[in-house]
Amino acid sequence: MSAIVRNPAYASSFDKGHLALPPAKKYLVLTCMDARIDPAAAFGIGLGDAHVIGNAGASAQDALRSIVISEQLLGTTRSYSSSIQEALLTSRSDAFQELKSRALDFFPFPHLKTAVEDDVKSLKSSPLIPDAVPTSGWVYKVETGKVERVV
Amino acid sequence: MSAIVRNPAYASSFDKGHLALPPAKKYLVLTCMDARIDPAAAFGIGLGDAHVIGNAGASAQDALRSIVISEQLLGTTRSYSSSIQEALLTSRSDAFQELKSRALDFFPFPHLKTAVEDDVKSLKSSPLIPDAVPTSGWVYKVETGKVERVV
Repeated sequence: MSAIVRNPAYASSFDKGHLALPPAKKYLVLTCMDARIDPAAAFGIGLGDAHVIGNAGASAQDALRSIVISEQLLGTTRSYSSSIQEALLTSRSDAFQELKSRALDFFPFPHLKTAVEDDVKSLKSSPLIPDAVPTSGWVYKVETGKVERVV
Repeated sequence: MSAIVRNPAYASSFDKGHLALPPAKKYLVLTCMDARIDPAAAFGIGLGDAHVIGNAGASAQDALRSIVISEQLLGTTRSYSSSIQEALLTSRSDAFQELKSRALDFFPFPHLKTAVEDDVKSLKSSPLIPDAVPTSGWVYKVETGKVERVV
């Protein structure tokens, strides 16, 4: 992937490794995955200020899992895990039926590298993705600004 | 939303309104929605080069709809619509059972502003999102770099 060769330059001058997980400005942006949109630049989002969700067409229905997790992260729950579901059920009793009817899966991942490996494997074996599509998995470290290839 | 006040400055010097929808470098990046990640900067993605999908934890399972649409967009289908599903079924017969079993909804939107209004409405009325969360809907024009509030 040609773009990734530019990561060392970014990491070498990276000085934002101290930022906290909760977005400093307490908002999230849902935008389209469209290559012609650079949300940070176009909407003036500083690093660490807001969660940015991107999908085809900026669909809120498709992004519901991430929106719910993001909202929980702005509150007291600070990790992506199945506890988000529990916290939601405890804090909002009317959410129970909605979660149940939507069968919303939060896809928690206790082990990061394993999750990346599993995801790449699932894409490579999916009949929905042509075999000719090259797929790789990487981990980005928010403390250093560096990416490392996993698979 | 404080960030959006910086959009006019971005739009005033915007000169990339001619970019085509298909990503110039023909790849997509799936990353976490984490506020501490700026994909364009960290991974060296130029405007128009690649689709960028972001969700909680960079989950490929959760992003499957967007990945499939993106892959189709790199090919012959050039619009987000139900025709993507048809194209997929025509080009890859083994995808049929997979699509069926996953009940993958592509959420096509024939009318942009109506889609934004409907999405905001669905979030405001969802038991999964606390009523106190302010929600607004905007349209970003790739030709001008400008955002306009819809709702």
